[in-house]
Amino acid sequence: MTGRLDLIGVGPGDPELLTLKAVRRIAAADLVAYPRTESGAALAFEIARPHIAEPDRALPLDIPMRGARAAVMAAYDGIADTLATHVGAGRNVAYLCEGDPMLYGSAAHLLDRLAGRVPVQIVPGVTSLTAAAAAASLPLGTGADILKILPASLPDAALEAELATAGAAAFIKPGRHTARLRELLARTGRAEAAIVVSYATQDRQVIAPLTEITGDLPYFSIVLVPGGSGIEE
Amino acid sequence: MTGRLDLIGVGPGDPELLTLKAVRRIAAADLVAYPRTESGAALAFEIARPHIAEPDRALPLDIPMRGARAAVMAAYDGIADTLATHVGAGRNVAYLCEGDPMLYGSAAHLLDRLAGRVPVQIVPGVTSLTAAAAAASLPLGTGADILKILPASLPDAALEAELATAGAAAFIKPGRHTARLRELLARTGRAEAAIVVSYATQDRQVIAPLTEITGDLPYFSIVLVPGGSGIEE
Repeated sequence: MTGRLDLIGVGPGDPELLTLKAVRRIAAADLVAYPRTESGAALAFEIARPHIAEPDRALPLDIPMRGARAAVMAAYDGIADTLATHVGAGRNVAYLCEGDPMLYGSAAHLLDRLAGRVPVQIVPGVTSLTAAAAAASLPLGTGADILKILPASLPDAALEAELATAGAAAFIKPGRHTARLRELLARTGRAEAAIVVSYATQDRQVIAPLTEITGDLPYFSIVLVPGGSGIEE
Repeated sequence: MTGRLDLIGVGPGDPELLTLKAVRRIAAADLVAYPRTESGAALAFEIARPHIAEPDRALPLDIPMRGARAAVMAAYDGIADTLATHVGAGRNVAYLCEGDPMLYGSAAHLLDRLAGRVPVQIVPGVTSLTAAAAAASLPLGTGADILKILPASLPDAALEAELATAGAAAFIKPGRHTARLRELLARTGRAEAAIVVSYATQDRQVIAPLTEITGDLPYFSIVLVPGGSGIEE
């Protein structure tokens, strides 16, 4: 009997944005593992909860969201060992990932530690990026546009240079970088068209023009900057 | 009675990558519209076919994939008028989009023509981008990496400049630009790590290292170039 680890994207928040494949794999798993933050938040689990019939299959894994890099990496080492032990015992383990496993998530840390050590399969999910674009009715990439995903934590000079040659852009993780980002977009003439989506598809979703935002945006916000070239093909 | 147009992402090809929301909206629609190419191909329809119980609800729309820009734009004008007429008559129309409606698809043309004219809702779907990354087990964006989506048709100089400041990159629509792209990646030292995924999640899916590719890749291929910085957070 051979176990397997499935890294499963559960989408951005709306439980209906689970795929049929995610639902089937979650239902068939022996164990359903999921990340839990220091505050006890476990969004991926909440999204998939209706499909986890027996609560005893649930395996919360405590993921440090902040702290010294060495401590965070050590935590992922421990989590990877826990998952490897279960898989080694012949269990099929579903690890739930918010959004998509391959796009800015904790799954990359697990894949890095477990690929080649246990069988791993990846089930893609709806990303918060396209969910935000859908919520804002704003096409992200069209025709021969370049689309850039830009972490807002990068230095101003780097972000400004990237924006100059971007078609469309999506700034992720604004949080405490919001004021800086807003000034940068105003300075480069891209603020007027920018739309902010926080917590895409979740009950607490907010959509607003960037120019109406005062104060810091939540970390889980995306600032969408449409392409200058329209929808040319 | 008010009609509505739903632009629905049906994912990259695997029918199991439909979302629960897409399935429900398609099942509830009065009409299921979908793009059909000159050759008769209608991938979005094939993906969703099991959920379109009555064939008389299907509404194929002929989309010119090539030809003079004016002719293509005129075709979209006609398609938009057709959809507006059905919605105006009170029908709920589902328009099926391969992948996600907001990421490099025909839906942007329809949204451009119909937003404000009829009620439009957008249902995000799994993109071929993250499906390719999942198939290749290659994280696309991690930590503070910049991720760039780069149409392969852009000039060499532009692509090379973008690559120099990219963390991870995904080149889309290689087709006849494959040889040029391969040379560019070899020249910049990024070819060895690049993975190609053609027709992600479809029966004809192919995954291969770029260095093993000879000849032109299919247009619907993605060349994934991992981030240089690994999975730093």
